[in-house]
Amino acid sequence: MTKKSSGKRISVTFQPDDITATAEYKANLLETAIAAGVPINASCGGAGTCGTCKILIEKGRVDSIRTAKVSEEEYARGTRQACQSRILSNLTVQIPAESRLETAVLEREMASGVEAQAALATGWGFKPSVAKDFIELVPPTLKDNTSDLSRLMRGLKKRHGREKISVDFPVVKKLAQVLRDGRWMVTVTTLRDSETGLRLINIEPGDTRTKLYCLAFDIGTTAVRGQLLDLNRGKILAQSLDYNRQRSYGEDVISRIAYSQKPGGLKRLQQAVVATINKIIGELIEQAGVETKDIAHMVVAGNTTMTQLLLGLDPKYLRLAPYVPTINTAPPLTASPLGIEVAEHVHLYTIPSVASYVGGDIVAGVLGTGVYQRKKLTLYIDIGTNGEIVIGNSDWMVTASCSAGPAFEGGGIKHGMIAASGAIEDFNISRQNLEPEVHTIGNSKASGICGAGLINIVAALFSAGVINQKGKFHSHLPTKRIRRGRDGYEYVIAWATETEMGKDIVLTEVDIDNLIRAKAAMYAGCQTLIRSVGTSCPDVERVIVAGTFGSNIDIDKAVTIGLLPDLPRERFIFIGNGSLLGARLTAFSHDLVSEGQRAAGMMPNLELSESSDFMHNYVAALFLPHTHAEEFPSVRVKLNKAEQEIGI
Amino acid sequence: MTKKSSGKRISVTFQPDDITATAEYKANLLETAIAAGVPINASCGGAGTCGTCKILIEKGRVDSIRTAKVSEEEYARGTRQACQSRILSNLTVQIPAESRLETAVLEREMASGVEAQAALATGWGFKPSVAKDFIELVPPTLKDNTSDLSRLMRGLKKRHGREKISVDFPVVKKLAQVLRDGRWMVTVTTLRDSETGLRLINIEPGDTRTKLYCLAFDIGTTAVRGQLLDLNRGKILAQSLDYNRQRSYGEDVISRIAYSQKPGGLKRLQQAVVATINKIIGELIEQAGVETKDIAHMVVAGNTTMTQLLLGLDPKYLRLAPYVPTINTAPPLTASPLGIEVAEHVHLYTIPSVASYVGGDIVAGVLGTGVYQRKKLTLYIDIGTNGEIVIGNSDWMVTASCSAGPAFEGGGIKHGMIAASGAIEDFNISRQNLEPEVHTIGNSKASGICGAGLINIVAALFSAGVINQKGKFHSHLPTKRIRRGRDGYEYVIAWATETEMGKDIVLTEVDIDNLIRAKAAMYAGCQTLIRSVGTSCPDVERVIVAGTFGSNIDIDKAVTIGLLPDLPRERFIFIGNGSLLGARLTAFSHDLVSEGQRAAGMMPNLELSESSDFMHNYVAALFLPHTHAEEFPSVRVKLNKAEQEIGI
Repeated sequence: MTKKSSGKRISVTFQPDDITATAEYKANLLETAIAAGVPINASCGGAGTCGTCKILIEKGRVDSIRTAKVSEEEYARGTRQACQSRILSNLTVQIPAESRLETAVLEREMASGVEAQAALATGWGFKPSVAKDFIELVPPTLKDNTSDLSRLMRGLKKRHGREKISVDFPVVKKLAQVLRDGRWMVTVTTLRDSETGLRLINIEPGDTRTKLYCLAFDIGTTAVRGQLLDLNRGKILAQSLDYNRQRSYGEDVISRIAYSQKPGGLKRLQQAVVATINKIIGELIEQAGVETKDIAHMVVAGNTTMTQLLLGLDPKYLRLAPYVPTINTAPPLTASPLGIEVAEHVHLYTIPSVASYVGGDIVAGVLGTGVYQRKKLTLYIDIGTNGEIVIGNSDWMVTASCSAGPAFEGGGIKHGMIAASGAIEDFNISRQNLEPEVHTIGNSKASGICGAGLINIVAALFSAGVINQKGKFHSHLPTKRIRRGRDGYEYVIAWATETEMGKDIVLTEVDIDNLIRAKAAMYAGCQTLIRSVGTSCPDVERVIVAGTFGSNIDIDKAVTIGLLPDLPRERFIFIGNGSLLGARLTAFSHDLVSEGQRAAGMMPNLELSESSDFMHNYVAALFLPHTHAEEFPSVRVKLNKAEQEIGI
Repeated sequence: MTKKSSGKRISVTFQPDDITATAEYKANLLETAIAAGVPINASCGGAGTCGTCKILIEKGRVDSIRTAKVSEEEYARGTRQACQSRILSNLTVQIPAESRLETAVLEREMASGVEAQAALATGWGFKPSVAKDFIELVPPTLKDNTSDLSRLMRGLKKRHGREKISVDFPVVKKLAQVLRDGRWMVTVTTLRDSETGLRLINIEPGDTRTKLYCLAFDIGTTAVRGQLLDLNRGKILAQSLDYNRQRSYGEDVISRIAYSQKPGGLKRLQQAVVATINKIIGELIEQAGVETKDIAHMVVAGNTTMTQLLLGLDPKYLRLAPYVPTINTAPPLTASPLGIEVAEHVHLYTIPSVASYVGGDIVAGVLGTGVYQRKKLTLYIDIGTNGEIVIGNSDWMVTASCSAGPAFEGGGIKHGMIAASGAIEDFNISRQNLEPEVHTIGNSKASGICGAGLINIVAALFSAGVINQKGKFHSHLPTKRIRRGRDGYEYVIAWATETEMGKDIVLTEVDIDNLIRAKAAMYAGCQTLIRSVGTSCPDVERVIVAGTFGSNIDIDKAVTIGLLPDLPRERFIFIGNGSLLGARLTAFSHDLVSEGQRAAGMMPNLELSESSDFMHNYVAALFLPHTHAEEFPSVRVKLNKAEQEIGI
């Protein structure tokens, strides 16, 4: 008699997903749940210390020790920690909402800088589009020598019932060898594709279920941001960002589209963004210690131009009236033919776009923040090189986009940079001696100014009366930091000795002018869109501010320069990079694929470039905070107070 | 007022397909039907001379002249020639069976050497898996600037209703340009794929519906045969054949599989067959004057080894017990990545196989000849390097295969060749002076002996008493044509002066021995399979003989050498290349795709190599006609008579 296993097979049903697994006598309940693909949380990895894997035994018996994580009362009702339970008989187990993986994901979102659960999409189940199944096949004999593929399909049908499963050809190419290398025990990766149904995309020998990763990317005009996700645990394992290498060919989408029309231009742009993505993938797998071959899926969000350039689709017609994109929803395709350095079987899912200037990035944001799910009238603003704006609720949404220019990403700014280590992101100025107080990302020596820093600096300089409403320096002020440079007056933010590259970091009047144009475009866009639906700023019940730098700016400062509307501060929520958030949640849940289609489908687009109201509003916004001071009452009060203090 | 068109749109419904088209007043009814994809026959191309496009007007009015092709009685009942009719009002039109394209195809099959309609599959409708639709789109405006793809899909949905349509990525890549080049009038090509549903595979500017072609191929171990098909008219436009270039790496499948295991071997074999296919495609398009870009689909049948080699799948396990193929049904794939020189959008459909040694070629034959549709007990024999055999009827089928060696394709024979111009295919011998009478393909100077010729020659020599039951020459006979060569005795079939290459063409005892082994394998295979299902040769009600050379051999002669069973001659039907026939009919009708799956699924395979009965039967068959003379009563009678005549 061996101690290890009696060989008795027991059936365990997990609710509410209604997944039934077989297990051996005394098998660990958590391990059984994870192997069966039940979306159960287990933060501590099964050590018994976190209490996140609590389940309710509805029927049957387990052998389980009560730890401090389970109260006596809970224990009496049948609550156990799955990781501490051994299966003794056939079971029916309930996974309560708080132990589910989607709950864990939402909690992690909040912990990692997302300020309110109230701004996250709800109602989705944790079920990634890609999944792994471990299958043990009966080896062939002379009496049963059907093809390898038919045998595999027989095994798969036991898991997926009568559902039709199509097979990608690369699986067929390695099928014979993998089945035999794995001695007829293999792990298959399936992809649920909304167009073509369930697809078999990969096969590996043995049991590789624990290794299932996905990439989520936000392809921005200025910067590209990527994350590596663990699809078994719903976790971000690594993240990284870099400038989009397409910047060498133009700062904004218009100049990129122009460049794409040169001979070989489209190809070079495509290769540039792919090179950026590949560099980030390299960093992500190194950070996380993961192998490229275990990455099974890729979800990407970007504006329409970035998406078309990534896919190698000529963007010419995006900028010619009537501004028609080639696609809003990309057909199923694999990533490696584009040059992306992932395994051959990795499919690329692109978040759908709405129009030429309302891309997958904003759909991803709307999706991730659930704007389309709530009754509250919400203004969603994604601040970036292309500003995107949505106003609406669960009944209707309208969207618009405006070309803000690259200032918010540090572009077109003399010492601008993306929000990487060394970027100045916080700034205050002493009203006494006009000396600055500077804070950099990572507390490194200053290397430049990121978008958030730029807003904070300009707001502080304006509030302190160092610059006027037109963004020009009061050059007579008693500080050597204000001086005449090559581009007119400038303010020295950091002296050469304090900086990484040993040169002064300055803010010029040209820089300020660029920021004013950018904020004017964003504000005028919001104003035009809000008025187009017959409402006005004060009616907006919630403002969701997306954009990576959004989390680092101060609402007051953004309102001070006239970037955000002057509303009660509690209505604002910052969610960081909304595009990446939506891509990530879509990677975690196939539900969001169809939701994405639905959200994209319900958003008509207002073409601001065709709107005379927009031009009017834009010109009026080319002031700090605005030509019509009455739109910014709180700023007026503050400025009046400041003026009195420093006596300008 | 213009004469051309009043602009009035009229609706025409074609039955029994229930296809409704719109047409202008006085439009030609045949042209309207063809444009709408109605499978209507029109042999003379609309000249009014053939009478094959007769239709019945059930409702509405046409302006039509009665020609001699329509009797007064028919005319009174409402019968008209579609090509002679102009539409005057909304119509309902019935296409009778005899005017349908599938009827035309079946008639053409009979005309082109197929001996009896009774041996062709029935009940399918003429509807190729690929189809073209001409679509006129509303150009985009600022109020309606949805993506190009959504616009196209809107247009397509009018044709295909709510059916889900997926899009191949290459279509997306050229979509924007094609829509604009065609001024929003385009022709789309769709493929109905049994796994992934309806796919949009190509788009072209303007109306290209008249150009829709398909390739059908039989990939044989020795020879590859291809046809170019017109999918609008159900016609063979060109055909060609060539040796399979894989022959450089081995004569039969076993030696090819062995070669595939050498470094780079699999790749070289794959490239060799692709090179053969490409050469044939080149010949086909030249013969037919068709452009490669207008070929929209490709249907291929081959034995399992040939299919796996074409797809680049390692055939190793095909020849190792328990003889497992990687696939029976290939997943959807395009042809050009394999190296086949067709447009990027051409999908390759491979007729499914049953087992390692029962391939898509035999499934194609069973499919094309409808063995699985009829009550009659049918023996289907495909004679080739790999002999394939099916016995059964509409209730059940069993299949087997035997390695006959390349003799039937002229391989392993000193002066053997494929059935091309110059091949000796018919042969008689004078019993007086033992001089031959020789007939070559194309009446050219003799170049060699094809498979049919070989059988005819050996049968004639045997009947005339020139060779004995063991296939050895009676060397004492008074003729200088029998002489001693390097390989023992030989018979000179053509003297050097009569041949293409200026050398004697001979038949050696080694050649005869090779043929005897080949015919013994075929016959023993049939015998073993027939007996395995508890029946015997005389119970077989119909024998369908497939194999290109089959049409050229004489049943008597094939029975004389013991290749075919000695049954009443009226039970035999020769259908030529069954594999190519099945591929061609599958190209004409998507019905045969699912039928092919069904037919393949109902054929269990008997492994002859594992059968001791087969070995026993094989050894007994190594005689002319057979060790057991009683199995060939008619041959015995004939030989006795001959012996008396010439007094051996």
